[in-house]
Amino acid sequence: MLAQNQLFHNLAGNEISDIEAISVTKKFKKNEIIYLQEDEAKYIYLIKNGWVKLFAETIDGEEAIIDVLPKGHIFGDHAIMEGSTSSHSAETIEDSEIIMIPISKIRELFGQSPKFAMNLLEMLTLKQKFKDREVEHLSLQNAPQRIGCFLLRLCKPDDLNNIHINLPYDKSLIASRLGMKAETFSRALSRLKTEAGISVSGSRVNISSITRLSTYCCNACSNSFPCEDVKANAVG
Amino acid sequence: MLAQNQLFHNLAGNEISDIEAISVTKKFKKNEIIYLQEDEAKYIYLIKNGWVKLFAETIDGEEAIIDVLPKGHIFGDHAIMEGSTSSHSAETIEDSEIIMIPISKIRELFGQSPKFAMNLLEMLTLKQKFKDREVEHLSLQNAPQRIGCFLLRLCKPDDLNNIHINLPYDKSLIASRLGMKAETFSRALSRLKTEAGISVSGSRVNISSITRLSTYCCNACSNSFPCEDVKANAVG
Repeated sequence: MLAQNQLFHNLAGNEISDIEAISVTKKFKKNEIIYLQEDEAKYIYLIKNGWVKLFAETIDGEEAIIDVLPKGHIFGDHAIMEGSTSSHSAETIEDSEIIMIPISKIRELFGQSPKFAMNLLEMLTLKQKFKDREVEHLSLQNAPQRIGCFLLRLCKPDDLNNIHINLPYDKSLIASRLGMKAETFSRALSRLKTEAGISVSGSRVNISSITRLSTYCCNACSNSFPCEDVKANAVG
Repeated sequence: MLAQNQLFHNLAGNEISDIEAISVTKKFKKNEIIYLQEDEAKYIYLIKNGWVKLFAETIDGEEAIIDVLPKGHIFGDHAIMEGSTSSHSAETIEDSEIIMIPISKIRELFGQSPKFAMNLLEMLTLKQKFKDREVEHLSLQNAPQRIGCFLLRLCKPDDLNNIHINLPYDKSLIASRLGMKAETFSRALSRLKTEAGISVSGSRVNISSITRLSTYCCNACSNSFPCEDVKANAVG
């Protein structure tokens, strides 16, 4: 699994086996904390199975969802800077298996393997673009458009009409992930149904026309569907 | 100026002089485009004087402000990944002087100077944390809290009472930078006056008590004042 990940792509066989030798795969139950914002960073993490949310908790006790990540994604990469604290905490939202790679090994690789250094740089650059797009969306897209964009990101680049998709996690978490309250999410979803031709039953969503939905959402974005940052961010 | 920047900090003297030898300092008029989102990236940019906004334009013609940067800041660093397009366009908002460093030189340094590679990694990691905080704020802080946070970031860590600050650029741009419309900004500013004890006259702002303002804003944030990411993001 390591060798397939973009971060470890094209490393020498012995570099991969070195990493494997000192990495630990740990099982986490649903809703188990992986690390807290103030914790000293000791690992970077690769999701082997399951789902992880990255979140920040305010002094008032509200929770901001920074990201929700499926298998194949890397997190905790702030740790590579010594003495760096995290901007978030990490918690599983399903039973999950996580590969934990000691940060000392990552720092060593960064100094010794030009290929790894370039891979890491690429990952950080992509994440930065992705965050820029997110700031753009939170600034300009309305709530139904943000939900529509979330749904489009679950589609394939060649999807056309009458597409069925399953919501990857529960609606209240999707609402938080998109920076809206549950009531706003619910109202916005209704509006999306009438204005962009989607229907929802439980966690199953039908999109009658990708063109109709993407016209509705992507006109309020600087990208058009299927957007480049989604393709770039796709796992594997 | 190069040697003082965090990205070039502690490089060997000949590395700095090599960069200086092939860099160009260019003057830009106010509201001049530096690059567009779709442009091929040839440089990274260091602001010697002036102000630069990074923005994305939607298909509908709306503008999202991704960032507004003063002197000493680096932008265009996505260019280090070959073939990478930008997530934004860049334009001056004042007459500005910009140091343009050919991206080929930056790629060369990344491969040859472990110190530079570490500096670049540190810059990207800090930017990522800063963006995470921004996503958190856009998700959870209300409009007056976001404005208050913007004002606190203009204060010094040891400021206490009766602080005078000048808004660094015009209010409509601050509104866009904070992801709100001009009307929302204006209403939110009034609310901030009554609820957090600030007064505004033109571009001059008086903060009666940093504690009162930070209590109002930072309780809706996972950081407290003076926040670590602001200190880390401070220039020089």
